[in-house]
Amino acid sequence: MATETASRIDQWRELAQQLRVDSIRSTTEAGSGHPTSSMSAADIAAVLLASHFRYDFKNAKNPNNDHLILSKGHASPLLYSLFKAAGAVSDDEMMTLRKLGSRMEGHPTPDLPWVDVATGSLGQGLPIGVGVALAGQRLEHAPFRVWVIMGDSEMAEGSVWEAMGRASDEKLGNLIGIVDVNRLGQRGPTALQWHTEVYAARARAFGWRAIEIDGHDYAQIDKALAQAEQGGDQPTLIVAKTKKGAGVKLVEDQENWHGKALSKDQATEAIAELGGVRHLTVTPAAPPASNGATTQPAGTLRLPVWELGKKVATRQAFGDALKAVGAAKPDVVAIDAEVGNSTFTGTFQEAFPDRFFQTYIAEQQMIATAVGMSVRGFVPFAATFAAFLSRAYDFIRMSAISKANIRLCGSHAGVSIGEDGPSQMALEDLAMMRSVGGSTVLYPCDANQTARLVAEMADQHGIVYMRTTRAATPVIYAASDSFPIGGSKVVRQSDNDAVTIVAAGITLPEAMTAADELARGGIAARVIDAYSVKPIDAATLQAAAAATKGIVVVEDHWPEGGLGAAVLEGLASTGASMPPVKLLGVTKLPGSGTPAQLLDVCGISASHIVEAARSLVS
Amino acid sequence: MATETASRIDQWRELAQQLRVDSIRSTTEAGSGHPTSSMSAADIAAVLLASHFRYDFKNAKNPNNDHLILSKGHASPLLYSLFKAAGAVSDDEMMTLRKLGSRMEGHPTPDLPWVDVATGSLGQGLPIGVGVALAGQRLEHAPFRVWVIMGDSEMAEGSVWEAMGRASDEKLGNLIGIVDVNRLGQRGPTALQWHTEVYAARARAFGWRAIEIDGHDYAQIDKALAQAEQGGDQPTLIVAKTKKGAGVKLVEDQENWHGKALSKDQATEAIAELGGVRHLTVTPAAPPASNGATTQPAGTLRLPVWELGKKVATRQAFGDALKAVGAAKPDVVAIDAEVGNSTFTGTFQEAFPDRFFQTYIAEQQMIATAVGMSVRGFVPFAATFAAFLSRAYDFIRMSAISKANIRLCGSHAGVSIGEDGPSQMALEDLAMMRSVGGSTVLYPCDANQTARLVAEMADQHGIVYMRTTRAATPVIYAASDSFPIGGSKVVRQSDNDAVTIVAAGITLPEAMTAADELARGGIAARVIDAYSVKPIDAATLQAAAAATKGIVVVEDHWPEGGLGAAVLEGLASTGASMPPVKLLGVTKLPGSGTPAQLLDVCGISASHIVEAARSLVS
Repeated sequence: MATETASRIDQWRELAQQLRVDSIRSTTEAGSGHPTSSMSAADIAAVLLASHFRYDFKNAKNPNNDHLILSKGHASPLLYSLFKAAGAVSDDEMMTLRKLGSRMEGHPTPDLPWVDVATGSLGQGLPIGVGVALAGQRLEHAPFRVWVIMGDSEMAEGSVWEAMGRASDEKLGNLIGIVDVNRLGQRGPTALQWHTEVYAARARAFGWRAIEIDGHDYAQIDKALAQAEQGGDQPTLIVAKTKKGAGVKLVEDQENWHGKALSKDQATEAIAELGGVRHLTVTPAAPPASNGATTQPAGTLRLPVWELGKKVATRQAFGDALKAVGAAKPDVVAIDAEVGNSTFTGTFQEAFPDRFFQTYIAEQQMIATAVGMSVRGFVPFAATFAAFLSRAYDFIRMSAISKANIRLCGSHAGVSIGEDGPSQMALEDLAMMRSVGGSTVLYPCDANQTARLVAEMADQHGIVYMRTTRAATPVIYAASDSFPIGGSKVVRQSDNDAVTIVAAGITLPEAMTAADELARGGIAARVIDAYSVKPIDAATLQAAAAATKGIVVVEDHWPEGGLGAAVLEGLASTGASMPPVKLLGVTKLPGSGTPAQLLDVCGISASHIVEAARSLVS
Repeated sequence: MATETASRIDQWRELAQQLRVDSIRSTTEAGSGHPTSSMSAADIAAVLLASHFRYDFKNAKNPNNDHLILSKGHASPLLYSLFKAAGAVSDDEMMTLRKLGSRMEGHPTPDLPWVDVATGSLGQGLPIGVGVALAGQRLEHAPFRVWVIMGDSEMAEGSVWEAMGRASDEKLGNLIGIVDVNRLGQRGPTALQWHTEVYAARARAFGWRAIEIDGHDYAQIDKALAQAEQGGDQPTLIVAKTKKGAGVKLVEDQENWHGKALSKDQATEAIAELGGVRHLTVTPAAPPASNGATTQPAGTLRLPVWELGKKVATRQAFGDALKAVGAAKPDVVAIDAEVGNSTFTGTFQEAFPDRFFQTYIAEQQMIATAVGMSVRGFVPFAATFAAFLSRAYDFIRMSAISKANIRLCGSHAGVSIGEDGPSQMALEDLAMMRSVGGSTVLYPCDANQTARLVAEMADQHGIVYMRTTRAATPVIYAASDSFPIGGSKVVRQSDNDAVTIVAAGITLPEAMTAADELARGGIAARVIDAYSVKPIDAATLQAAAAATKGIVVVEDHWPEGGLGAAVLEGLASTGASMPPVKLLGVTKLPGSGTPAQLLDVCGISASHIVEAARSLVS
């Protein structure tokens, strides 16, 4: 027994030293990167891979594979060394770290099939792990575990504590966090240094099982991981005291070695100190056999329809449509940040409580839950007030790098929400969501259009955003109309249009009223409903630009970066010259007031559109 | 003694009932708002105002006044009722709640002189309170206390826990948080309901003194507030169990009464139940006499200068210039989120350690600290990687509504950072920061320009953002050149310019190289350095548009909402028609690579500019 233990420890030590050596080799070859942040966690990673992780590297799509999220993504050399040790990547490929075209990027991305999500913005791994673990526990009843390796610096991020609260509340015994407490952040000691007891106390107060260990003691690591695997109804946080750069005297527990590669000479010496280059391969335990969770068949989509002329808020139509899409597609899930009665995800919740997730007022966790669900192949819709999506912008930004497929809805957009005032008014969400890599941005103006677009969202890849409106707006489209993403609707057109008005959402009815008023004054206005803000329908815009004397774009948003910018960028993309374009947006900080008052005071009501259009024509 | 206590309790009760009545009266008159969220905290607010708050309502500018931040901003009727009770606003004005033009907005804003910051996006009050308390303790040695009233729902926000960690680490005995645990969120019970012991345990684990009380028991409230006032080296969290809608049977502890005004009839009955309308006035204790903190005189500004042709990273110039500005202006402070050796706020730290604040990796707390410093009249600069400012976008958005004066610097922008990969590359920061109300966005290309702009930032109001570059770029401007905000520099110009190239920051050298190459092919290109991205120099752009066949805009940013959009919006604002405009930005998700490789692969290097310019001319 003693011998067996000793030999296991030798095995772990050899593997850990290999991970250290490889982290040094690859970063020195790259001339940059984070060897010391890799070395502190090498012992933990070795024991995890050799004795606890259950993963079929030959089949990354095995649904019962464990998940490993390296939240401290700057320690990517460790992860790639681990993949080499698992036989998943060759030594040669590992050595292409940080080179153009290599999958061995500076921070991990899902270009590697064993990487679920991009990391490198700290404090995101655990929240996303919560999403993955929730899917496994509540939706799939799958046996996989979710392992998240974190740095100690990132424990300062609030998002980690959103996740801590959520995980214990959801009783996620399948979630195991490991904090690599190496004491040193990028520019010096962390706030808590080696006070592992403080991390543990905080974790316990947040409802977790916490285990403090020496992160370089193999027996302690092994025991802690085994305890964590017991799961039960509590997530586990292993708080491991480690040394940054552990194993190499030159860098061990030294400041000013963050994110710095060793020189060739330093590396040669360090590798010798670590016992030389090794090429051990370890085959992790196989995941448990599938328990054959049955996939429910998709049903027929029956979208709700509304009568022309009825007044319905698009946010309400969103909720009704989401319920319909949920009925047709069993993989659709919804996530709320405690405002489901305002965004109308509550409608979905009533119909499908098992597929509804509540993060309470924690928008970062809401997005992270959606990303985690996307990792497991579900079709998540997450919604809150559009203004509060700004709380999770970094998570949204990173989800694009993670190539996640998530659908977001922001309600209560713009000054038209009225009395609640500017803190609740999204006036930047179009700009924010347009400037997410590969995103889609939709902004419906009526209920039937909303329903159609919600159905399209479910099938759209990437980060898809819908902006909805608080107030009821008239139904102007027939239920049979179609609204392809990337398209637009010309809702007023004649052979002698003098001016073009582009609007979307709440400003579309204003634009139609303005066109009526202009017509009474003898000016024919073309009105374009740019419901697809990104991609924008450049061809239709260009045709209008060519046919009329100028374009008025009107939006319930700051004038920067929103619909107006989208129209201008779309026109520019055609390569043609452009007629005068007048942008109407919210130019001064609004206060409280009625929706109609605020649309007018802020310069985006029908009368302002009329005035702008007249000035272009005259 | 017993009688005196009884009479104090009667006084508190009468005042609390008045606050409840007024919260009901004003919301019923408005037809919307949050009476029940106000009523749960009315007893606490009454005891605070009458017996603990030290504030001269006749002089809101008294530097020793306590601060009161109503983090649960939706309970604004309570705050306005409190201001009425303090004699600061009339009953008539209080009754204008939520009306157009009234200072009694749906959520509090600093249009009221006794309101430090806008609230209404939950979880921001405590982090900002940390900033205010830090200024009082470390910079001003002032006797004021900072009281923050929070809701229980917002304790799910990670930002609260960033603040909890920071406050105890900074030993902020002058900070007192009060959680109004009324059990009910917007759409139902909170995760922790009335488990005040869990909130208290979490607070203690985060290093706070925690006191659990019945929030409707006046003696307990009074005792807890008195204990909290003892301060010492620990912040205090008072966890008060309360009932939403307390005092009125119809709504007390009832679901579906969030954010809903009582009908006129319901209000009449409720007011009777509460003992009728009152108009008590309470004069809070005066703040302690000023301890006469001496203001240091401003010195002469001596900006660093760099020789033409030298290669210097603008981020490094930012740090050197910030140190120079700090030497000249004793009210300049700097805040870091644990990357000061990358953003070069570390240069300021070395020179002025007493005016440097570390929030560790907690970007929301970094912005909140800056806002708190702004509340106290300091001139804060906060810096992190530009990509990670997205983590704090909601705080930035709200700081504009708070009319805060904060200066932000985002380093490591764009693909030109190279090997670290997309998680570290800001590709949306220009769009994000442009769409902040009243913001200023600057993007220097060389060291001398950076220094001049840093100096201007210190004097600029509102939210001011500077984007800096990781790589060293050549110094192209003389130290004597000036760069007014709203201006631009035409760096290449001739009488026969055929095409215009607009660039900024890292793409400016590429544009100059491209112009040289075009000149060799016989095409004269005007090159404009749009260092002031917002406000943009529309006149100079328009002159170039009129003089040349087309414009190429090139930026290290997604093509949406950034410099290209700023140029188009600027051109549109002139009312003129526009020539063809070609936008060059990053159109596909980059990976790792060298800066030069990535500029080229992503389509924004000199050769791509040349190609785009040629196509416009031909």
